[in-house]
Amino acid sequence: MDIGFIGLGQMGSAIAHNLVKAGHSVAVWNRSPEKTKALVEAGARKAETPAEAAGGKVVVTMLAHDAAVERVVFGEDGVLASPARPIHVSMSTIGIGLAERLTMAHAGAGGGFVSAPVFGRPNAAEAGKLFVVAAGAAEALAVCAPLFAAVGQRTFTVGEDPKAANVIKLCGNYMIMAAIESLAEAMTLAAKNGVDKASLLEVLTSTLFSAPVFKTYGEILVHEQFKPAGFAAPLGLKDMNLVDAAALNAKASMPVLAVLRSQLVTAIARHGEEVDWSAIAKVVDENSGV
Amino acid sequence: MDIGFIGLGQMGSAIAHNLVKAGHSVAVWNRSPEKTKALVEAGARKAETPAEAAGGKVVVTMLAHDAAVERVVFGEDGVLASPARPIHVSMSTIGIGLAERLTMAHAGAGGGFVSAPVFGRPNAAEAGKLFVVAAGAAEALAVCAPLFAAVGQRTFTVGEDPKAANVIKLCGNYMIMAAIESLAEAMTLAAKNGVDKASLLEVLTSTLFSAPVFKTYGEILVHEQFKPAGFAAPLGLKDMNLVDAAALNAKASMPVLAVLRSQLVTAIARHGEEVDWSAIAKVVDENSGV
Amino acid sequence: MDIGFIGLGQMGSAIAHNLVKAGHSVAVWNRSPEKTKALVEAGARKAETPAEAAGGKVVVTMLAHDAAVERVVFGEDGVLASPARPIHVSMSTIGIGLAERLTMAHAGAGGGFVSAPVFGRPNAAEAGKLFVVAAGAAEALAVCAPLFAAVGQRTFTVGEDPKAANVIKLCGNYMIMAAIESLAEAMTLAAKNGVDKASLLEVLTSTLFSAPVFKTYGEILVHEQFKPAGFAAPLGLKDMNLVDAAALNAKASMPVLAVLRSQLVTAIARHGEEVDWSAIAKVVDENSGV
Amino acid sequence: MDIGFIGLGQMGSAIAHNLVKAGHSVAVWNRSPEKTKALVEAGARKAETPAEAAGGKVVVTMLAHDAAVERVVFGEDGVLASPARPIHVSMSTIGIGLAERLTMAHAGAGGGFVSAPVFGRPNAAEAGKLFVVAAGAAEALAVCAPLFAAVGQRTFTVGEDPKAANVIKLCGNYMIMAAIESLAEAMTLAAKNGVDKASLLEVLTSTLFSAPVFKTYGEILVHEQFKPAGFAAPLGLKDMNLVDAAALNAKASMPVLAVLRSQLVTAIARHGEEVDWSAIAKVVDENSGV
Repeated sequence: MDIGFIGLGQMGSAIAHNLVKAGHSVAVWNRSPEKTKALVEAGARKAETPAEAAGGKVVVTMLAHDAAVERVVFGEDGVLASPARPIHVSMSTIGIGLAERLTMAHAGAGGGFVSAPVFGRPNAAEAGKLFVVAAGAAEALAVCAPLFAAVGQRTFTVGEDPKAANVIKLCGNYMIMAAIESLAEAMTLAAKNGVDKASLLEVLTSTLFSAPVFKTYGEILVHEQFKPAGFAAPLGLKDMNLVDAAALNAKASMPVLAVLRSQLVTAIARHGEEVDWSAIAKVVDENSGV
Repeated sequence: MDIGFIGLGQMGSAIAHNLVKAGHSVAVWNRSPEKTKALVEAGARKAETPAEAAGGKVVVTMLAHDAAVERVVFGEDGVLASPARPIHVSMSTIGIGLAERLTMAHAGAGGGFVSAPVFGRPNAAEAGKLFVVAAGAAEALAVCAPLFAAVGQRTFTVGEDPKAANVIKLCGNYMIMAAIESLAEAMTLAAKNGVDKASLLEVLTSTLFSAPVFKTYGEILVHEQFKPAGFAAPLGLKDMNLVDAAALNAKASMPVLAVLRSQLVTAIARHGEEVDWSAIAKVVDENSGV
Repeated sequence: MDIGFIGLGQMGSAIAHNLVKAGHSVAVWNRSPEKTKALVEAGARKAETPAEAAGGKVVVTMLAHDAAVERVVFGEDGVLASPARPIHVSMSTIGIGLAERLTMAHAGAGGGFVSAPVFGRPNAAEAGKLFVVAAGAAEALAVCAPLFAAVGQRTFTVGEDPKAANVIKLCGNYMIMAAIESLAEAMTLAAKNGVDKASLLEVLTSTLFSAPVFKTYGEILVHEQFKPAGFAAPLGLKDMNLVDAAALNAKASMPVLAVLRSQLVTAIARHGEEVDWSAIAKVVDENSGV
Repeated sequence: MDIGFIGLGQMGSAIAHNLVKAGHSVAVWNRSPEKTKALVEAGARKAETPAEAAGGKVVVTMLAHDAAVERVVFGEDGVLASPARPIHVSMSTIGIGLAERLTMAHAGAGGGFVSAPVFGRPNAAEAGKLFVVAAGAAEALAVCAPLFAAVGQRTFTVGEDPKAANVIKLCGNYMIMAAIESLAEAMTLAAKNGVDKASLLEVLTSTLFSAPVFKTYGEILVHEQFKPAGFAAPLGLKDMNLVDAAALNAKASMPVLAVLRSQLVTAIARHGEEVDWSAIAKVVDENSGV
């Protein structure tokens, strides 16, 4: 399939490589063009504009924030300017409002729009083991199926309204951040009462909390591996702000979310923009005098 | 083994029955004596006082709060009054301060003390599928091993200082409550954005959150089964207060704990003392205008 | 002085009337033109566009939110389109980012920009008893002095950078909201312990809390006068969101702000958009089972 | 009048001195007897036991925490052991539960009980400028009137049930702590946006927040005078814990209280037990990366 791929950060590059490996014809575009090099060597083609990348059947975006998506879609030489009218598959975490705007814009332009955000850190992306949460018109989803199969271990289809997938993605990221914070608080409480963090973690993950999120982040917390970031704190804060915007708009009460945003602000204020979002655990320790 | 068992609530009765079934000689005591009936029919012996129940090698307590434990241990005809000097195995959730006091008192009296709180709701207790977290002198733990095997699916030994087990139990209950609250907030956000709670739950529990705590409580939240309570809200609040006391004493910063206590207070204030602790999800909905 | 006045809501109308009364020549503009009627009767002149209103020495904006300010300044026939290059005096509560943008835009256009937000509810505006917090170039402030004198009881000059006044205004509104919430919590605690709210208020406002904010809102809380709104909850939430944006941008930790936003969301979700922002006190009561 | 005075800390000594100065016959007792020296030099008499101090018409307690009050009242040679059956006037901040217990115990013993906590820092105590909040039987209050007049600038009588005064005192201390925290958050937000803390304070205290609590603590915050403590952080935390206990017992929802306790825990964990309770402002700064 002719696929355009826009956004070659850590996650995007890994996904695009898997599409090339799966035999798709991939045209790549990135704001800093040097990032296209490795993919071109792997067999992809370099597009000069987002519109050019959008010349095939499908164009994927995997970008750092809403403003970047707006630029490559609505901007000059953007996706909407492509005469091919491709299906736009948005795989990054975007806000609910933007998802609605994209749905309407593509419908108006005669193209399609599918929201297909993914769960998984960079190593899962490289291994093609992401979880894909997809929503959109059934026909469009059918077209995208081989694409999703090439990058993920499982695809969840959650309805015809694209934003449903974004809602679930935002909820998921919120849940991860809440899991990290609560685990951090429990570990600090344990440590300050003479029980080491690893012992607590072992009991938790062997019993009621035997899930990947606790194992993965539990290890990070025990070993305080906050750099280099798998998912940087400012990205985490950006996502929690998208959750906050969705909650404000829908008038949903989320008191734990408020704590999470506050901890992220402190983590960044104290430790800079390079730390992993799990560095909120460091804030918990510091606020406990550790 | 000659075992005394004090405290025949929902959890205690189920555990005591499993001890009888496993062939142990069990003497039972309960403040309201009518609760001993079913166990006597099953083969247990009724003790007239806690001291009498403490006449064997081991005496277990499974009681609703710290004051009840203090009464049966330090009170008139209490466990400490037994000339048998048994190993006291405390299986209920008690505070760190009380665990320290019991450790010293039993050492002073020439008996032993093991903290062995359990994870699992009443149905797990009945099935002998509890998780036991045990701490105490190695010799005492060895004596208790067959007892733990009769009631649980796995025993975690976490050191020689009994209170370590209590710390882990309190951390675990805190983690469960935090999981419920964050799941409730995510579900309400999803629902108010047009995504049904069950869809969100399926994605979460099939991916990063594939752990019993999310499956069990997720179903309760989706179906709003807050009555009858598997674990009543006032007991949850009592436990969060024990966590709070441990955090204050150790100067551990736990901002999410503060949210949890606040939600439990509201759940009880609005819906009474009979609701399950997961009814904080109802508070989230109500505070969102649902 | 030739003054343009844009935005004739409850606050704007009262201020504009005082400018007319003080003898200034006032041109008024409002999106819904029927609101200009009373002012025209009082001696003002109706402008057909914001640009026309900006034809004098000074043009004041008093609008409900940032988007409205952006529209009348940057939009078609907006303030920037006026060849008069007036001093734009922004009296409503706007965000820090917009204040910076306005400062630059007016400097670029050859006009001036003064931020002069006010403290006071509608009755203070009618009485010409507002507090004005003003920042901008000294020369521009000197031009505006008689204007401020006509509408307020005192003007605080807080520097040459306009946004300083907006920062102080946002801090002030945050402080008011925090005062209301903490007073509400104290009153509910008192009431649930058998002490009536009015008794508590009397002691507080006769001693350490003898300030207008506690007297004014204390009475509102005691008498539960949440309708009609002096300052509607959605406006309060909008302001707290501006504070939140400023805090996020500057990486300032504001845990009480998080509580306030959460309470406002609940107040609106439960009681609609018509209630006063002090209706968060109702949420406190309801969350306490009252 | 024959007055006993128990508890000669910073506040107690100042109050007792004023009683001596006013011509009362004062018998003083303190756990560390050396603190009685200055008062004996000023004309007081040293009592050897709390019971001896309670040999007159009235006995005042001004102690650091509930346990100390319990000891001097219910303990060996305690106030209740005095055959004089005096009116016990409790002037320190105690919990609601203890107030109820004291009311009953003194009634049972044939004495009287008045709760009369005070507002004011040590310098106000020295100047005889405290605010006294008193509750108890009318007759007992009449007896105490000259005592209150000697130590305070105004007495508020708030009913016949002694605990009403304690409820109001706890609410007041909660309000002070909330005022400090919100002022600290606003000041940090201002400072991080280029507005100095003193400028913000001047606007606030000249307008809606023209109350002693903001002036006093505002100066402390601007000058970061957190040592020596006028009221040490652990005492502040103790009081917030009494508020928390009252809120839990009455099921009152107090989300801002939760923030305050958390900030105090961090202040103590990071800066030790010697800092003033207003050092939560330091935590706000630190959590903002200042």
